[in-house]
Amino acid sequence: MKTMDTERSSASTGALETHEVTQSQGIVLGVLLGSPEIMTEYIAAFEQVTPQFRLALPQDVADPEAITFALAWDPGAEDFRPYPNLRLVSSIAAGVNGILASASLPSDVPLMRIAGDSQAQMMAGFVTWHVLWHHRRFGDYLANQRQRHWQRLPKRDASDVRIGLLGAGKMGGAVARALMALDYDVAIHSRSGRNLPAGVEGFSGTDGLERLVARSDILINLLPLTAETRGILNAELFSRLPSGAVLIHVGRGEHLIEADLLAALDSGQLSAASLDVFAIEPLPTDHVFWHHDRIVVTPHDACDSTPTQVAQEVAEAMARLDGGQLPISVVDRHAGY
Amino acid sequence: MKTMDTERSSASTGALETHEVTQSQGIVLGVLLGSPEIMTEYIAAFEQVTPQFRLALPQDVADPEAITFALAWDPGAEDFRPYPNLRLVSSIAAGVNGILASASLPSDVPLMRIAGDSQAQMMAGFVTWHVLWHHRRFGDYLANQRQRHWQRLPKRDASDVRIGLLGAGKMGGAVARALMALDYDVAIHSRSGRNLPAGVEGFSGTDGLERLVARSDILINLLPLTAETRGILNAELFSRLPSGAVLIHVGRGEHLIEADLLAALDSGQLSAASLDVFAIEPLPTDHVFWHHDRIVVTPHDACDSTPTQVAQEVAEAMARLDGGQLPISVVDRHAGY
Repeated sequence: MKTMDTERSSASTGALETHEVTQSQGIVLGVLLGSPEIMTEYIAAFEQVTPQFRLALPQDVADPEAITFALAWDPGAEDFRPYPNLRLVSSIAAGVNGILASASLPSDVPLMRIAGDSQAQMMAGFVTWHVLWHHRRFGDYLANQRQRHWQRLPKRDASDVRIGLLGAGKMGGAVARALMALDYDVAIHSRSGRNLPAGVEGFSGTDGLERLVARSDILINLLPLTAETRGILNAELFSRLPSGAVLIHVGRGEHLIEADLLAALDSGQLSAASLDVFAIEPLPTDHVFWHHDRIVVTPHDACDSTPTQVAQEVAEAMARLDGGQLPISVVDRHAGY
Repeated sequence: MKTMDTERSSASTGALETHEVTQSQGIVLGVLLGSPEIMTEYIAAFEQVTPQFRLALPQDVADPEAITFALAWDPGAEDFRPYPNLRLVSSIAAGVNGILASASLPSDVPLMRIAGDSQAQMMAGFVTWHVLWHHRRFGDYLANQRQRHWQRLPKRDASDVRIGLLGAGKMGGAVARALMALDYDVAIHSRSGRNLPAGVEGFSGTDGLERLVARSDILINLLPLTAETRGILNAELFSRLPSGAVLIHVGRGEHLIEADLLAALDSGQLSAASLDVFAIEPLPTDHVFWHHDRIVVTPHDACDSTPTQVAQEVAEAMARLDGGQLPISVVDRHAGY
């Protein structure tokens, strides 16, 4: 916000200015739909980074027919209805399940998600930290420091730790490459089983999922939320893991059957879990996950798409549409991601 | 120990058997010098992994003239004196400063250290965890979990975090490759400035050290302890770091001027430190580092050379000597590592 000039920053604050800026002046108008707390930083980013694009809140849109793109996160069922001339709908992040759930999402408009290199690298760093936390027992080091207790710990070579990734794509690739650079034994389950980083063992299909899970000392869930993946982290899957396995869950809260996770931790089938996503977010204060001694809770914060990145990717997608091409990260609505 | 047969395991327990096993039977005899607590696992590893080599404690050696190699860790000043026919002296780990400090170390015998791929990968994992801990503020996540407090944190791309490595070699290379896979901006200072991984900026010399330090948001010390590196982590070096920098210290305790570190943390010049090595180990219970809220203390445990690995590398080095070659990881005594 600091570097914006007064003229630009005023544009997002009232219907009058928004109305005055029309496509005839070369300005492309968009609307921001969804969670109110995320709004202003995106409006500011579009103004700063891609000044030919202008983003407004619904209440500031004077002429809905002039709106040609929508940026959305968990929009309401009717939120898309007022805008008959949308050419593009974009998520602000990698997930699109909240947008696909909106009854008014036009069926004939390209839907895209933000899945940039920067996000994938953030995810790789986040997941790598959790892998090392569990493998190298850093929680024990921190506890020993609090006790002023000097104790070396037994070690296992990373090459003897089998990592299973659920979900390929850009993030899965970045995670796999980071873990392989540390010598972990990495395998990936994905829909196609193809286009995996060199050196990764690929699995696909139901049978492949069972085999991947059976060889995963640490299982990492990076899946998108779809009808097929909802509830995939359940008692049956946990029972197929090697005894004492670890779950790192950075997909969507609805992938996980919470009671099954707690039972698997109680029985020792799982030794620990790192959870970044939850069925209800923020995680309610009285939820048992917060104070479970073998669960690490983080606030759905594995990676961010920065508003700057979102503005750039949306602008690039609009340019591609002008040239008759679909956005690079267009969503396959049938697949759900 | 489990798989050893009775005959072999008895060999290490008395002078009689050791005496009976001679080079005429194709057995090569060695002596283990130094810290008593590490002894038995090395003796067992040689018996299991390289049965043609036999390792004994000094008190179990009947014929010192039959001893042709020594494995040592912090040996006493006179410990090498009884053995006139040594062909090889090996450390049990990467460090050799304790061996070089022994007055009786023969000057004409090759000295080697253990610096395997497995150790380097362990070091890379250990250092990567600390880099992510500081960069991604995982300490804040853990504290927030204890408070049941859901709070996302601001993020910086790894590519905007400048990492400076002091010390190249196998460990520096492994650390650099792991951090580059996570997109960090990595530079290395080394004696030669050569043989660095692709994509790493190299610095050498006093001037290069100053320039590397000045661009290091996170400074990682992997140096060996030599006359030139003793005390290198001091107030002057800290003052050249960007304000708020982080120190990750996995070299040797004697590299660090402890009072200078505490002053730099107090002033804010350093924001945090991870320390794995200390001037006195184990770190005394009443040492201020244990309970400093911006210091992570670990018990000199970044990586281990396993006894199995040591036995294999020593056997390989003896075979190279038989063939007229020096050990691969022979120490340059003038350089001190």
